[in-house]
Amino acid sequence: MSTRPSDAAPDFQVLARGCESRTVLDHVTGRWGTLILLVLHGDAKRFSELRRSVDGINEKALAQSLRQLERDGFVDRAASEGYPSRVEYRLTETGRRITARLTALVDDLYAAMPQVLAAQAAYDSRRPGGPVS
Amino acid sequence: MSTRPSDAAPDFQVLARGCESRTVLDHVTGRWGTLILLVLHGDAKRFSELRRSVDGINEKALAQSLRQLERDGFVDRAASEGYPSRVEYRLTETGRRITARLTALVDDLYAAMPQVLAAQAAYDSRRPGGPVS
Repeated sequence: MSTRPSDAAPDFQVLARGCESRTVLDHVTGRWGTLILLVLHGDAKRFSELRRSVDGINEKALAQSLRQLERDGFVDRAASEGYPSRVEYRLTETGRRITARLTALVDDLYAAMPQVLAAQAAYDSRRPGGPVS
Repeated sequence: MSTRPSDAAPDFQVLARGCESRTVLDHVTGRWGTLILLVLHGDAKRFSELRRSVDGINEKALAQSLRQLERDGFVDRAASEGYPSRVEYRLTETGRRITARLTALVDDLYAAMPQVLAAQAAYDSRRPGGPVS
């Protein structure tokens, strides 16, 4: 059973500054959102596991990103089974659908990296001023 | 003919802080990268057209984002045909492949927006402190 509506909602436009969809896109593609979702794609994770998996994230950024993703309905925060129970984060059904798209994007990016690195080298050799910041 | 290698390069990992692939992911999913690529998905565009299409972007952010995307080999900057010739930005083949993934992501996001808005309302009603920043 697909939960996707037969016609895409026409009322959203990420190019428009005030549209809620732009904010949500920022959450799933933002500095940390993508990486957190990719880690959760595998399995439910505890906060400390997420922090270790996403190299370079700090506690504050992780907590804020998780709150945004939970509020948007992409991530569920729940106590694990067993004793002592622990808080775990896992993807919702909506979160899994969106994260599958991110996974495909990252797979294509990996495949494109040889071309990307070649393009960067060619660009830098044309502009001896050094790499773009 | 596919330009995609038969085995995905195993040498890249966006979760690792120092990996070039994380920087490139930031460029294509960052604050403006996704929106610029989505606009170029339709057709080549001049700088002024891009600036109008991506609501809220300023000249400096657009110029910097375009330089990053050009350096990564996702966008070509070329003089248009005709006289007077004008500088236009267009997707490369690699850029088109990546942008197709972003388009699919945004389409799924639009489809998910009713659930997202419902999740946000439910979250906010559980936490009267107001929305997450």
